[in-house]
Amino acid sequence: MRLCRFSSDGAQRVGVLSGEIVIDLLAAGGLPDMFSTMTDLIAAGAPALKAAQGLSVTAPPEARIPLSSVDLEAPLMPSTVLCSGSNYRSHNAEKANTPLSGREPEFFVKTADCVIGPGDHIICDPVHTQKLDCEAELAVVIGRAGRHIAAANALDHVFGYTVANDVTARDRQVRRTPEGMTWYELGSGKAFDTSLPLGPVIITADEVPDPQRLTLRSRVNGELRQQASTSEMIWTCAELVHFFSINFTLKPGMVILTGTPAGTAWSVDRDLGGTWTSPPGLTPATRYCLPGDEIECEIVEIGVLSNTVSGPAEAL
Amino acid sequence: MRLCRFSSDGAQRVGVLSGEIVIDLLAAGGLPDMFSTMTDLIAAGAPALKAAQGLSVTAPPEARIPLSSVDLEAPLMPSTVLCSGSNYRSHNAEKANTPLSGREPEFFVKTADCVIGPGDHIICDPVHTQKLDCEAELAVVIGRAGRHIAAANALDHVFGYTVANDVTARDRQVRRTPEGMTWYELGSGKAFDTSLPLGPVIITADEVPDPQRLTLRSRVNGELRQQASTSEMIWTCAELVHFFSINFTLKPGMVILTGTPAGTAWSVDRDLGGTWTSPPGLTPATRYCLPGDEIECEIVEIGVLSNTVSGPAEAL
Repeated sequence: MRLCRFSSDGAQRVGVLSGEIVIDLLAAGGLPDMFSTMTDLIAAGAPALKAAQGLSVTAPPEARIPLSSVDLEAPLMPSTVLCSGSNYRSHNAEKANTPLSGREPEFFVKTADCVIGPGDHIICDPVHTQKLDCEAELAVVIGRAGRHIAAANALDHVFGYTVANDVTARDRQVRRTPEGMTWYELGSGKAFDTSLPLGPVIITADEVPDPQRLTLRSRVNGELRQQASTSEMIWTCAELVHFFSINFTLKPGMVILTGTPAGTAWSVDRDLGGTWTSPPGLTPATRYCLPGDEIECEIVEIGVLSNTVSGPAEAL
Repeated sequence: MRLCRFSSDGAQRVGVLSGEIVIDLLAAGGLPDMFSTMTDLIAAGAPALKAAQGLSVTAPPEARIPLSSVDLEAPLMPSTVLCSGSNYRSHNAEKANTPLSGREPEFFVKTADCVIGPGDHIICDPVHTQKLDCEAELAVVIGRAGRHIAAANALDHVFGYTVANDVTARDRQVRRTPEGMTWYELGSGKAFDTSLPLGPVIITADEVPDPQRLTLRSRVNGELRQQASTSEMIWTCAELVHFFSINFTLKPGMVILTGTPAGTAWSVDRDLGGTWTSPPGLTPATRYCLPGDEIECEIVEIGVLSNTVSGPAEAL
């Protein structure tokens, strides 16, 4: 099942995407306790999924809305987004490595205040950054709570998957001190307004037999920048669920970002340690994002997450 | 005014603390729109504060509850907590410095999933950390939204102040690579279950004419570990509001942590670069937290935030 959130008459609704039709689960007769927010739906577990499936069959015509006439929103607003950096060898090879690269997953945090939806503007604020970069990533949506979850059982805790753009202020992430030392700062470079587009839908875990066999791409103004299989991750989704559950009791609706492959603008930025060697079939990325750029992050099996980059004034 | 959150008959309530009495603002006749959560109250602005003040005078006896018979909770659940490290020269002097220490505020993020209230257990989980450390801090509660807020006007955006304990897994924050390089990792070392006790109350900004003239202390099992004036901050509260508002549109109910002074357990940890020299009148801190320890973080003008450290099983 493909689940989404959308606006309808000013209210936010949860729906099932079926082809080009969105089924409004409340309008179809769903219980408010179960379907008022995506987090409610996730927390309600298997009965909610079964009910949603039933409602998407029995929904009356007024609960069936053409996709073209709704505004999709981020499919959920996670309280905590646990992010793994440096999780594809191809990306690690093209950038300045940290001392821990490849030894353990990088760990940083984004929050609901970073999240925007499909079609929303990514703000490019020159006061904040001159080097705005995009990173397409598979996002894991936690379904069942747990702490110290063993990797072997970890996928049982996954509700589904969506697409994320881990928008990064590269010049705040990678710093050069006056003494010439390179320094990494995953706070200011990662957590800021509009730094986490999510969507367009959550695909439920039952439709993803193996999350390590998905195809990920990104395009800037139609130009292919990233293309990889999730099989190229260093730590699998299951291992990341295990890893982050050492810190947090994972809760329904938390999200884990799984890192990005080669092809970011960083890769060609010699000033910040980029060491791009163009893989066959890919055009080298040559620049950071600027207002007007159209960013598409895609996981073929899930969908395309599209956002336009805007200056601070236009985005308001 | 001193504002608090507390549990009463299973429901969470917002109250005014007046001496040893808590005035339940809903039970006193307050509007649910304004007083259902602390974030509602903060977002409602000056009218809510005025209404709360009136209600605390007119409240009937049944809305006046002895403090001793309620459980105080964290005064609010902030969606994003913006944290500044290395903001007291005394703390910087006692620890291994980062290359950017003293040049700009460190920046890391905690979330609502880290927050616990007064009296709640701080989990000491040996799988996560062997070096659990506490840091008493002044926490700034944002009242009025804004982005790119000038330091000169920044305190106009502050709703009030509370006390925070920036609980830290020191062995995850400070890493030594096999090659002997020191590396800092503010994600895993800072964001985890129970890593942010907050409370006991928010004191409204009108009662704090100068947030740089407050006295901060921490005690472990009654032993004084930290004592400083907020005048010793490198970046003032106003400068931190300015700094973080470059990244985020600050919203009502967001929280900013302002860093901690000397006296953490890190200071005596030679393995992690500690360089303690005991200031006069203070007993050197000699060890990290263990189950059973009683931690008190105090800002004299606000109150004492007390928490007990527990093993993972006891805390459940």
